[in-house]
Amino acid sequence: MLNKKDLLLYLCTNQVRPITQALEEALAGGVTMVQIREKDASTQRFYEVACMVQALTRRYGVPLVINDRIDIALAVNADGVHLGQSDMPLGAARKLVGNSMFIGVSAGTLEQALAAQKYGADYLGVGPVYPTTSKADVPDALGTERLRVIREAVHIPVIGIGGIGPHNIRDVMQTGVAGVAVISAILSQPDIKAATQELRDALGCFPV
Amino acid sequence: MLNKKDLLLYLCTNQVRPITQALEEALAGGVTMVQIREKDASTQRFYEVACMVQALTRRYGVPLVINDRIDIALAVNADGVHLGQSDMPLGAARKLVGNSMFIGVSAGTLEQALAAQKYGADYLGVGPVYPTTSKADVPDALGTERLRVIREAVHIPVIGIGGIGPHNIRDVMQTGVAGVAVISAILSQPDIKAATQELRDALGCFPV
Repeated sequence: MLNKKDLLLYLCTNQVRPITQALEEALAGGVTMVQIREKDASTQRFYEVACMVQALTRRYGVPLVINDRIDIALAVNADGVHLGQSDMPLGAARKLVGNSMFIGVSAGTLEQALAAQKYGADYLGVGPVYPTTSKADVPDALGTERLRVIREAVHIPVIGIGGIGPHNIRDVMQTGVAGVAVISAILSQPDIKAATQELRDALGCFPV
Repeated sequence: MLNKKDLLLYLCTNQVRPITQALEEALAGGVTMVQIREKDASTQRFYEVACMVQALTRRYGVPLVINDRIDIALAVNADGVHLGQSDMPLGAARKLVGNSMFIGVSAGTLEQALAAQKYGADYLGVGPVYPTTSKADVPDALGTERLRVIREAVHIPVIGIGGIGPHNIRDVMQTGVAGVAVISAILSQPDIKAATQELRDALGCFPV
């Protein structure tokens, strides 16, 4: 099941190709959880990517989370699934995975956060904390104060997501979240392992 | 499990909106199986559509098949899943559904048909038999002779798909297939129930 400390530095992949080399560098640099997301790939391609990534994350002892697709998560024995607000309703998802997988839910408002907690989410990804270019059509940034309000209103772990990098990661952690999720702060950097280590160093002073 | 006679007049829905009224007319007219396909919808939307359609098909005692998405099929307790050549590999799919659901596979060649049979498909959708405008990027039409060759090479039931309507449905059935799959021959017609009844009448002389 979910170990809260694994949420510390959570890497989301966003249809990056080729993923394997970049991911291995990020794992070597110290990411603590990996989520893969393939909104446009065929099921066959997503399954193949998930199998490859599962082999890598297992080697590093890091949990693998599948975005949206519970069929893929079940097929590769992922550790968890992550559901957005347009994915399967949490109650239906829980029936499919039982307690064999943890379920994370994206929340952009306090109402969404409380609803996800009520229906059994194991953790929340809350954001965007800052403006981000990694995803299209995202709402306005919450800022750290609204992130703190949401974090304090729920008893399940929260991670911040959206526009987080080495320059602001401490501000996010000071809201009391369990960790941060990043995409481009790792995957868009010229030296992925070094960028990951820099983030881990910045996280070093926070208790988990 | 799969009842071969339910393959006789197999309706594929192809992201039709609103689906419910059209589908009810097709069920009243005599379709014997319904497959829903939502390649572009969010998982939430596909799940909602599948719940609505499941309520309808159950009322008519007609099996419901979900295209591609095993998570949706499991969540709504569908009767079967249908896999294209870019969907989850058949072996992985079977591990997820066990024997609680039948699995159909699309095959465009003899090689694909034999491979699907080998890995445990319960039926095959073979085509396109004729040129079709219902799906983009489909390969050249097989014709009834190549359909017959494939049908005779496998021992699992085969349905023909692609460009089939009242004018050629008997030619397709004379290859010995268990049934035909249609999209526009039902859903693009001004009177859906009458169009379905016309197809059922044309099928009346074939043993199932």
